[in-house]
Amino acid sequence: MSLPQESARRVRLAVDCMGGDHGPKVTLPACRAFLDAYPAAELILVGRAEALAAAAAWPRCSVVAATEVVEMHDPVELALRRKKDSSMRLAIAQLKPDVGGHAVADACVSAGNTGALMALSRYLLKTIDGIDRPAIAYALPNERDAFTTMLDLGANVDCSAEHLLQFALMGSALAAAVEGRPDPTVGLLNIGEEAIKGSETIKQAAELLRRAASHGLLNFHGNVEGNDIYKGTTDVVVCDGFVGNVVLKASEGLATMLSEFIRQEFTRNAYARFAAFAALPVLRHFKARVDPRRYNGAALLGLRGLVFKSHGSADAFAFEQALHRAYDAARNGLLERVHARIQDTLQALPAAPIAQAPDPDLSFAA
Amino acid sequence: MSLPQESARRVRLAVDCMGGDHGPKVTLPACRAFLDAYPAAELILVGRAEALAAAAAWPRCSVVAATEVVEMHDPVELALRRKKDSSMRLAIAQLKPDVGGHAVADACVSAGNTGALMALSRYLLKTIDGIDRPAIAYALPNERDAFTTMLDLGANVDCSAEHLLQFALMGSALAAAVEGRPDPTVGLLNIGEEAIKGSETIKQAAELLRRAASHGLLNFHGNVEGNDIYKGTTDVVVCDGFVGNVVLKASEGLATMLSEFIRQEFTRNAYARFAAFAALPVLRHFKARVDPRRYNGAALLGLRGLVFKSHGSADAFAFEQALHRAYDAARNGLLERVHARIQDTLQALPAAPIAQAPDPDLSFAA
Repeated sequence: MSLPQESARRVRLAVDCMGGDHGPKVTLPACRAFLDAYPAAELILVGRAEALAAAAAWPRCSVVAATEVVEMHDPVELALRRKKDSSMRLAIAQLKPDVGGHAVADACVSAGNTGALMALSRYLLKTIDGIDRPAIAYALPNERDAFTTMLDLGANVDCSAEHLLQFALMGSALAAAVEGRPDPTVGLLNIGEEAIKGSETIKQAAELLRRAASHGLLNFHGNVEGNDIYKGTTDVVVCDGFVGNVVLKASEGLATMLSEFIRQEFTRNAYARFAAFAALPVLRHFKARVDPRRYNGAALLGLRGLVFKSHGSADAFAFEQALHRAYDAARNGLLERVHARIQDTLQALPAAPIAQAPDPDLSFAA
Repeated sequence: MSLPQESARRVRLAVDCMGGDHGPKVTLPACRAFLDAYPAAELILVGRAEALAAAAAWPRCSVVAATEVVEMHDPVELALRRKKDSSMRLAIAQLKPDVGGHAVADACVSAGNTGALMALSRYLLKTIDGIDRPAIAYALPNERDAFTTMLDLGANVDCSAEHLLQFALMGSALAAAVEGRPDPTVGLLNIGEEAIKGSETIKQAAELLRRAASHGLLNFHGNVEGNDIYKGTTDVVVCDGFVGNVVLKASEGLATMLSEFIRQEFTRNAYARFAAFAALPVLRHFKARVDPRRYNGAALLGLRGLVFKSHGSADAFAFEQALHRAYDAARNGLLERVHARIQDTLQALPAAPIAQAPDPDLSFAA
């Protein structure tokens, strides 16, 4: 779990250049822009040799050739059992430590099929001791002009109280490493602020989170409701993957509907088109502020390696943001932070069993 | 369950005039405007005699005096066991049929505490045969400039597959009666469109819904995802009360954040304020289009009486919309429609047991 040999401050990312809806057309320009922006960064570009030929000569860049590609709708089984030379698999493999404990890369980024990415990451990297279910975490913008880190977003459909505690610990580590929150507040998503509300699992989880907080392992705020995600009441919001996935997609749907309505209103008639012209700089500023490309990049947490998932439809700007997030996570020792938090908790709360669970349903959309 | 004696076409609503954040200040002007808009409607105003004195002389209006008020944060127990002369309780009681099967009112509307409203409604009215858990349904705007009827929104934290089937049947009846959809399509909220996705309960529910559809009891579309709510993919979206409540509140939170950002952008500097002035008519039109007051009024479904819940913070315009919805539901025989659908389903699918469940957690926010 130590950093690569060369230098503790140099960060090397492995990039699955073939993943996503657009592949190298998008990933290569993003990588180029990223290298320009981060002079201390190095990239390992993974993909078909012919697609990456142009990048071979770039500085601080190496190429790993792969002969196969995991397609966006490939079943997990296919990615796992058949496509053994896929760019996704080889990119993740760069995170596997050698016998000396050193990995080639510090983090991996892919815009490919989420189910396959999670399954391959679990298979190749394994989970951290004390974590049996990796989670998917994403940063959502909030009213404070900051980000709320939310997890799980679809890796785990049914979660126990112990799983929710693990998510809380991992989400805290992520918010600290990537969002720069020194002691992130954590909220447990529920349907009322009162402790008596919610299902049995949620009540047990609240109790576990309170115990963890009383040991100084976590800054637990208490229950939060759906609107608190966008208010920014807490830095981290924890929920099971079913709820998280539905909330994320409902939010995307609502945002799409509202922007479509705004577009329709500003093209309704001649006056509206004039108003749109006058308001263009303001509307552009608004659009940039809520642009989801700005916070592209979900973290797969709980693995023995840092894996980041870009939205499948990302353009070069969006894919570059996922590279930035992965870079920040690696530079700020996210892996070590997660590991330390989990180990401290296992020691302080040995009574909280870490349940062994069957393989999760991998349902986060590509 | 028959309509009041006077006339099958005359609709009489019982209104809890004391409920909500503002009480008679809001409910009375709303009632007055409603009476003007619906010449065939009658109202029974329930509340403190002194607060309703002015309305006693209104046409097509009668007053039922209550000496107590259920406050917005009263515990359910207090409303149920102690405040036996509350305006909320007396308003619901107007729906109880007499020995001849005739009730005084066709529907009841309250802006009071949801938990108390649900508990009192269950206690006084009981559930329809074949329904063991009432649900809360709400109409959300969608991209088709129509409404998606979503349920449950917080009455039931944990739901079985049978409960989700019941919600589907009741939601269909509501969309038909109030939204004017002759054969509403129903979607089951899930985290992937594929049938293999989701928890065991969701998979079983999908199977039950498919069976109901094959008997012509339901127009089942299949699984839908969070974004489909606002796309308007189906007329009805069914989910458990935890997920529904979180989605509803997250949507409120996101809409609040976005409108606050728009406000900030249009006041950022002198040019932005000029642009805001130019764009004012367009922005007003947009605001009116997405105004949640326009679709205020959630239905409590599955009871032997039509109970509608207005948002607690509703103003007179919003409260009047809840009266409209209740009126439409009563006029279009929602109660009979729900009853018929449930009975047909019990006959056609006797193998689908209607599980008896403990009292639900009443958690929909006021």
